[in-house]
Amino acid sequence: MGNRMSVYRLSAYSRALKKFRELGYVKIFSKNIANTSGVTEFQVRKDFSLYGITGNKRGGYIVEDLISKIDSIFGKNKIEKVILIGCGSLGSALLKYRGFEKEGMQVAAGFDEDSSKQIKINNIVVYPMSHLQEFIRVNMISAAVLAVPGIVAQEISSLLIKYGILGILNFAPVNLTISENSNVSIINVNVATELENLLYHVNSNKSKIGTNSLPGS
Amino acid sequence: MGNRMSVYRLSAYSRALKKFRELGYVKIFSKNIANTSGVTEFQVRKDFSLYGITGNKRGGYIVEDLISKIDSIFGKNKIEKVILIGCGSLGSALLKYRGFEKEGMQVAAGFDEDSSKQIKINNIVVYPMSHLQEFIRVNMISAAVLAVPGIVAQEISSLLIKYGILGILNFAPVNLTISENSNVSIINVNVATELENLLYHVNSNKSKIGTNSLPGS
Repeated sequence: MGNRMSVYRLSAYSRALKKFRELGYVKIFSKNIANTSGVTEFQVRKDFSLYGITGNKRGGYIVEDLISKIDSIFGKNKIEKVILIGCGSLGSALLKYRGFEKEGMQVAAGFDEDSSKQIKINNIVVYPMSHLQEFIRVNMISAAVLAVPGIVAQEISSLLIKYGILGILNFAPVNLTISENSNVSIINVNVATELENLLYHVNSNKSKIGTNSLPGS
Repeated sequence: MGNRMSVYRLSAYSRALKKFRELGYVKIFSKNIANTSGVTEFQVRKDFSLYGITGNKRGGYIVEDLISKIDSIFGKNKIEKVILIGCGSLGSALLKYRGFEKEGMQVAAGFDEDSSKQIKINNIVVYPMSHLQEFIRVNMISAAVLAVPGIVAQEISSLLIKYGILGILNFAPVNLTISENSNVSIINVNVATELENLLYHVNSNKSKIGTNSLPGS
């Protein structure tokens, strides 16, 4: 099956296709998808073939068919319930984030050990951590979003895996790792590292344009 | 200078070094850094040499020196002011996010065209978009964080670049691109794509363990 990069590309194709649909397109060619996704036609067809998507080179693809095929690859034809661990500033923002529904996910609950955070945010109940195992079992949860402090992230991710979670999207400022052969996937999104990266590039660009002060000043 | 991956590694070394400092370490060897950062000793020394950090192979490095050298590479010895464009749910969470200060940044202001969002969040004023150009000029801002809807992200990033911004951390759900030779850097963090990626992996792991229902169920 697909590697991480091909998954990202498939995601980009899907986004492009939805734009074409909005524009009224019914049929589409790999060339159109390639152009709007910044890859080659060959890459598009290669990715489609990797995921078992077949088309008619001459006649193109039916936009609606392609969208639903990609959606089903991403498991979007059914709603996946996800839980969010850590409801501090980033976590509570994620509880309010509308992107989950758009991506075929529903945030079933939040969890936080701080009782002052055990409230309802955006109609989603935040439970104490002691409810975690039972909630995962009863609600058949497979996916979790982690927004806890770095210092407890590894411990909590181990708990989640023990309780049956198969995929973790980690926003804690540490890179979580698991063994290669595990049936669990961890995706790390490190905002702190990205800020550091931004800072580095800004400084490096400042010296490139030969100023430590500002354009316009 | 460094490429994107070496910047990320340097960031990991810095994090490891701060942990060693907390543990009371005064001197350290590249081997220690390598072990905690998940890379080889050779890689650590290669990265250090790339950024002009010199040490004594036999005597090791002084932890404090290394931290301050890396901090100065990231430009953390002075506070970099950053602005945040788009103060919806994700943007306002970022205004509350304490990671900025930790990374040597200060959020100087927020901007949003919706007047209901032009309030004070975490003591940071959210201004109308019409104030953007003047604010960047007067406050000598070089870095911006973008948390606007995808549909306006490209347009706003062009504005920012026109007004003198040198680095953009983009949370809008589109991959922004700029020309190769530009003195501006864009770092894309796409939460929607990461959610899609999570969903894909969860579904793929479900089929690997041969169940569409849940462990424990």
